[in-house]
Amino acid sequence: MKSRAAVAWEAGKPLQIEEIDVAGPKEGEVLLRMVATGVCHTDAFTLSGDDPEGIFPAILGHEGGAVVEEVGPGVTTLKPGDHVIPLYTPECGKCKFCLSGKTNLCQAIRATQGKGLMPDGTTRFSLNGKPIFHYMGTSTFSEYTVVPEIAVAKINKEAPLDKVCLLGCGVTTGIGAVLNTAKVEPGSTVAVFGLGGIGLSVIQGAVLAKASRIIAIDINEDKFEMARMLGATDFVNPKKYDAPIQEVIVDLTDGGVDYSFECIGNVNLMRAALECCHKGWGESVIVGVAGAGQEISTRPFQLVTGRVWRGTAFGGVKGRTELPGYVDRYMAGQINIDDFVTHTMGLDDINKAFDLMHEGKSIRSVILF
Amino acid sequence: MKSRAAVAWEAGKPLQIEEIDVAGPKEGEVLLRMVATGVCHTDAFTLSGDDPEGIFPAILGHEGGAVVEEVGPGVTTLKPGDHVIPLYTPECGKCKFCLSGKTNLCQAIRATQGKGLMPDGTTRFSLNGKPIFHYMGTSTFSEYTVVPEIAVAKINKEAPLDKVCLLGCGVTTGIGAVLNTAKVEPGSTVAVFGLGGIGLSVIQGAVLAKASRIIAIDINEDKFEMARMLGATDFVNPKKYDAPIQEVIVDLTDGGVDYSFECIGNVNLMRAALECCHKGWGESVIVGVAGAGQEISTRPFQLVTGRVWRGTAFGGVKGRTELPGYVDRYMAGQINIDDFVTHTMGLDDINKAFDLMHEGKSIRSVILF
Repeated sequence: MKSRAAVAWEAGKPLQIEEIDVAGPKEGEVLLRMVATGVCHTDAFTLSGDDPEGIFPAILGHEGGAVVEEVGPGVTTLKPGDHVIPLYTPECGKCKFCLSGKTNLCQAIRATQGKGLMPDGTTRFSLNGKPIFHYMGTSTFSEYTVVPEIAVAKINKEAPLDKVCLLGCGVTTGIGAVLNTAKVEPGSTVAVFGLGGIGLSVIQGAVLAKASRIIAIDINEDKFEMARMLGATDFVNPKKYDAPIQEVIVDLTDGGVDYSFECIGNVNLMRAALECCHKGWGESVIVGVAGAGQEISTRPFQLVTGRVWRGTAFGGVKGRTELPGYVDRYMAGQINIDDFVTHTMGLDDINKAFDLMHEGKSIRSVILF
Repeated sequence: MKSRAAVAWEAGKPLQIEEIDVAGPKEGEVLLRMVATGVCHTDAFTLSGDDPEGIFPAILGHEGGAVVEEVGPGVTTLKPGDHVIPLYTPECGKCKFCLSGKTNLCQAIRATQGKGLMPDGTTRFSLNGKPIFHYMGTSTFSEYTVVPEIAVAKINKEAPLDKVCLLGCGVTTGIGAVLNTAKVEPGSTVAVFGLGGIGLSVIQGAVLAKASRIIAIDINEDKFEMARMLGATDFVNPKKYDAPIQEVIVDLTDGGVDYSFECIGNVNLMRAALECCHKGWGESVIVGVAGAGQEISTRPFQLVTGRVWRGTAFGGVKGRTELPGYVDRYMAGQINIDDFVTHTMGLDDINKAFDLMHEGKSIRSVILF
């Protein structure tokens, strides 16, 4: 079928709106009609050409809210009309990773997904016979997209897809980092480095976890208002101090925080986030994605004296079994998504969404199909 | 009183046997008569002058087995005749760290201990009126030593002090790293980097934790026999492979180990130990002590994909409440210490113990008073 889509023809160039061809779902796949999609920094990172695993031409996008249009042979858990969020981290329930119970990093379709292909090694997208690659297994910048059944979370039909689409990445990543990865306990102190969509979601997670003190850290003080509204209690602009930020936080908290979260992707801040943790038990979680080849470092003494260094992907959240619960929490008023949608626009304006992001003017732009 | 002691007059010089003066215990302190002490790499590290916190002249030693000779005012938990192990990690039970329940790193006397002094800021050791400093709060290379009450574990009187003295550091550190810090589950795979006293004790801990596979790694294959006797199942000499050791271990284990332990203090091996852990859940524990100023590094992707980096000091074991149980486990035949004591000698020969260690010929030399 025909589908309007924003195509990334090559790195560093704006997306182009095209009428592409989308092939129907094969065995174990479903065809989705996209209702809305967020535009995330990871899309911009790949589009920029800095992502060493970026493949072009491709349909980007991974924060979608959609309706099932058609199911392929063998699909048993979904039917046309179901409301869904596509998952860049699938959940097959059968691989070593899913069966471990210890991680959400299902590896069932990892190899083909990384190559921009469906599990059978082919693509469903083309234009004039020329293949176009998938992206993160989701490709939500297209009115119609095809995804594997194991990469779809079926959600409450009452939920507004133009809001809960953000649970497909940013909001879930931040909240999950707190609840699933760090397992923050009530009364804990928390430091959040970077107040973009992820950092603000970490603040929400810390509130849900009943943290007693939530320190919001950013060099752009304009972001403090939203952080305060979501529940942050302290606000630190590192530019206002001569001392390294980790020392500032340690002083502010009588020895360091119980948990810290790096939500930017800056390896120097990852170190600071670890080192601002309390001796004996403080745990730091890397949420941001660093540039290719960059490394983190610290003195091993930091770990020997009891700090723990972790990371998280999609907040440790298992997409099919846990994500529907996040939608329900949004519906129950426990998770704020509405205030994260700072701009909405049609697909034709999608390059403006990237511009707003680069200018730091949006938390999230949502594209409406 | 007079006491025969091995004095470290200055860095890089052999210890000298002297008849020193030991003042009686002040409030909250106890006088111990040392029966036996192990000689550990940390003593050698400080004696070498490489330890930036080393203070001279000092009485080194921190793996002691002793009998309480006299108690100072206010001491309520110990009495003359009690058998004890001095603790370089005390347990006051009252500080923020002890009360947290999350760490064994009691900080009650940290400041003075680091300066080679008793909690009141003075030393109990002298020779001809010239003060000699304490070391790690224990100074077990002296027939008589004074330690704070909170830095003493009271143990089973039936236990042979010339064996269980090794529970004062190395053996407990290794076993505790497995049981307390990593909390290894039954059926886990474990990699142990370095087969000195600590690494061999990690193997013991892994056996106690019912690990299914214990991979012993060392460039000296002579150490594999003891590792096998203690329960290691696989033996790897990194020199026999062209590939980085982390790749070798990942290949050997179909994706990596569940837990790894660095027991040498080499920052490159600390990285290898992390990177040989299984994606999604593998945890690496730094047990070895790196040289001053050295740093560990890795790509943050290693953590974002689910690996966890930790460290441990004294195996996370709380000295007064948990160490007596280790003695009981030794008495019950669950912990092997006897085979770790490869040499015994009198105090006069203590420099030979250092020579044997430097030549790699001993696991532990025990000095008998």
